Amino acid sequence: MTTVPETAEDQACHSGPHGYIQDKPRYLNRLKRIEGQARGISRMVDEDVYCIDILTQISALNSALENVALGLLDDHLRHCVLDAAREGGDEAEKKLKEASDAVRRLVKS
Amino acid sequence: MTTVPETAEDQACHSGPHGYIQDKPRYLNRLKRIEGQARGISRMVDEDVYCIDILTQISALNSALENVALGLLDDHLRHCVLDAAREGGDEAEKKLKEASDAVRRLVKS
Amino acid sequence: MTTVPETAEDQACHSGPHGYIQDKPRYLNRLKRIEGQARGISRMVDEDVYCIDILTQISALNSALENVALGLLDDHLRHCVLDAAREGGDEAEKKLKEASDAVRRLVKS
Amino acid sequence: MTTVPETAEDQACHSGPHGYIQDKPRYLNRLKRIEGQARGISRMVDEDVYCIDILTQISALNSALENVALGLLDDHLRHCVLDAAREGGDEAEKKLKEASDAVRRLVKS
Repeated sequence: MTTVPETAEDQACHSGPHGYIQDKPRYLNRLKRIEGQARGISRMVDEDVYCIDILTQISALNSALENVALGLLDDHLRHCVLDAAREGGDEAEKKLKEASDAVRRLVKS
Repeated sequence: MTTVPETAEDQACHSGPHGYIQDKPRYLNRLKRIEGQARGISRMVDEDVYCIDILTQISALNSALENVALGLLDDHLRHCVLDAAREGGDEAEKKLKEASDAVRRLVKS
Repeated sequence: MTTVPETAEDQACHSGPHGYIQDKPRYLNRLKRIEGQARGISRMVDEDVYCIDILTQISALNSALENVALGLLDDHLRHCVLDAAREGGDEAEKKLKEASDAVRRLVKS
Repeated sequence: MTTVPETAEDQACHSGPHGYIQDKPRYLNRLKRIEGQARGISRMVDEDVYCIDILTQISALNSALENVALGLLDDHLRHCVLDAAREGGDEAEKKLKEASDAVRRLVKS
């Protein structure tokens, strides 16, 4: 499936040259490793590995996920939000509200 | 692979009737869902889904992982640590130190 | 002590009508409550209050501090960062880098 | 105000020689510094200090609070919970439930 960006601005935020897409292979690599870590934790539980060692892996996975989230958020602010601000209009405020809410969820999760 | 518990106490902490193993199918189910969530996030990046929606999924995944970790930790304290305390000796202190370090990593990650 | 804003932009980010200063009395009230919570925790330790009750108060204080931080961050993005983006130039990128670093510290702390 | 411990076990958990009280001066010192940090943040807002610098101080304060909480929790597990386990009975389970709930609040806050 591919998304079909409908406006120039959508394109910048989704898949255009200014979006986070430029680092896509790097993100996909990191996420592939994260999937592997999740699978590894499943296997550890299945094989009765010592609980503390499983907890260590979960902390590492949480940390890796947070780093991906912080990277995506930075890209998003840098491209979608700044671009919207430069274009003027209410869009920037709306995008900033969304971003602040996303930060809140990250900090509270 | 199966672990080979060497003492009664190890057995209680790893795969015995008092270990967290009693909830194993439930943990494995939750971890299977978590793997699916990780795979879903990968797909969202690949398909250029809107960044904020990806961040929401990452927060949900972090929260699900924390809940698994908190469950495993509770089981561990309840079984390994309390059992070691009941048996006496230095083992309980050692296990508690390990558990405190694991809590620190969870809180700080 | 009062800061002396040197440029229009500094003014917007520090104490001008577009800065977070507009909510200053509300922030100062929340921070006064937070100081009181910190003092209360000190008193609880001094009076040997049950450990778990102290931990509950520390969690509440952490949560209150996070809420202040999230509010200040939102104000900062909304005013300093968006204003810098609207004015053009490199300032917006610089401010965004700072903001992303601040989010990272909040998420990781 | 002073708490009035009613049983030997309460005493161990509150103010006896096995409680966290043995580090009381150190905790009180750390909490005094924490109060000072909270007051400093209030002053920074009042003096319109740059928002990002305030956020840095809030992250530092959160981290200091978490460290106090992790120290208190470790003392609590080491003394109240292990002691209860050694004495037998249902008390240890009850105390562990409390401790797990406190860890959950810390991780989620």
